[in-house]
Amino acid sequence: MHNSTLNSIFNRTSLRKYKNVEIEENHLNLILESAMRAPTAGNMMMYSIIVVKDARTKELLSKTCDNQPFIAAAPVILIFLADMHRLYNYFESCNIKDYCNKTNVKFKTPNLSSLFLAAGDAFIAAQNTVIAAESLNIGSCYIGDIIENYEIHKKHFNLPDWTFPISMLCLGYYPDDYPKKVTPRFDKKYIIHSEHYQDLNKDDFKNMYELYENKISKPNKYNAENFGQFLYGRKFGQEFSSEMERSINVILKHWLKK
Amino acid sequence: MHNSTLNSIFNRTSLRKYKNVEIEENHLNLILESAMRAPTAGNMMMYSIIVVKDARTKELLSKTCDNQPFIAAAPVILIFLADMHRLYNYFESCNIKDYCNKTNVKFKTPNLSSLFLAAGDAFIAAQNTVIAAESLNIGSCYIGDIIENYEIHKKHFNLPDWTFPISMLCLGYYPDDYPKKVTPRFDKKYIIHSEHYQDLNKDDFKNMYELYENKISKPNKYNAENFGQFLYGRKFGQEFSSEMERSINVILKHWLKK
Repeated sequence: MHNSTLNSIFNRTSLRKYKNVEIEENHLNLILESAMRAPTAGNMMMYSIIVVKDARTKELLSKTCDNQPFIAAAPVILIFLADMHRLYNYFESCNIKDYCNKTNVKFKTPNLSSLFLAAGDAFIAAQNTVIAAESLNIGSCYIGDIIENYEIHKKHFNLPDWTFPISMLCLGYYPDDYPKKVTPRFDKKYIIHSEHYQDLNKDDFKNMYELYENKISKPNKYNAENFGQFLYGRKFGQEFSSEMERSINVILKHWLKK
Repeated sequence: MHNSTLNSIFNRTSLRKYKNVEIEENHLNLILESAMRAPTAGNMMMYSIIVVKDARTKELLSKTCDNQPFIAAAPVILIFLADMHRLYNYFESCNIKDYCNKTNVKFKTPNLSSLFLAAGDAFIAAQNTVIAAESLNIGSCYIGDIIENYEIHKKHFNLPDWTFPISMLCLGYYPDDYPKKVTPRFDKKYIIHSEHYQDLNKDDFKNMYELYENKISKPNKYNAENFGQFLYGRKFGQEFSSEMERSINVILKHWLKK
């Protein structure tokens, strides 16, 4: 019924178990070229992608990214960096400080606005990767935990100060006969707003989360009485959440040279 | 040669001139459903999308987003918000503070890590929108300038403190016989790294930017002697760049309740 691009989008699901074969070189190339076709602010491509195939590095990432063993089994891992380092090195090679002095343009090192633009570039390129991969029967899983343990990643991957490891993707072919099951999303009336932002009320939340409310066991390991408490306990009450906050603050110190 | 999903990705270009017809309701629905199929951290969908069709609002956005008149002529505009407001309202409806007190889990309001996760969710959903639109012959253009002039947008769109207008898309059908021309990207050897981040040198930059170096006129309106200076003058030396930085700092004050 849909065109095949929409089918790739509608049928995509996070894959955490991969067929035990390498990704073909021509497929990986198509995926990386798709990433690079992503829209980018001012065509500046303020991101870099690190391709990881080394087994020991995958092992490291499986530990530093909130101890998720399946990461080590992914045939290919891509790390997406918001990258202002490359652009500022280029500016330096163009004598940018002389230019700023001569023309009275203020010389600014990377700040929060370039961080958000570069992070946008990186996320947008990552999602092109996901859709391209899906169309080639290659599944993917985002790992937001790459933001954690910055010091370890900075050292291992040789990350300059003006790079920010913003997202990571595990990639691998779907296993044969994989029972693909698409995760339900909330009804669009809760996500899509017309002309202005509209608040939801208690009844809306009850309907919105009904499916999940009925799914959790009571009692449960988070001592939660309802799904909201369960979700908070599982996602925001955990150590990895505090670690991510700590790590971001360290990254920002490097980025802003504070 | 490629599958049609890859064709949608490879042929997409930023469209700033739209066919003067409404977007069909079924097409807009498919686009919004595609956005909502995007991967999202913990299936929490920490974003909201505001659909703008109102002519006066488009007129406003064309001014507040760095004075770009074509914005007002887009049949549909989508504003992507990183949104922790909805989730924290839900938590409140679940008596989250009582839960935290009872279980000794720390109650935290939205912080930088939830901002980056939510911003990722929003960007990733935006790019699904772009690819889905492209497959329906609907062109798109990202407007990063939605981050500017926060106070005006907050008031007009009724944005709660824990929402961050992170990106915007203009959408409309390609004009008939539109001469689609895909923008060149840098060679992948400058963007893709194997296993570790690698620095580029002066010769790399010379090759990387050669195409652009030969394109700018000398003299030029930015008094730039080379493309690096030209790019800095055009992108980072401008008022909109300072305004974005100012605006982000205001948004962060609201987000972090400082």
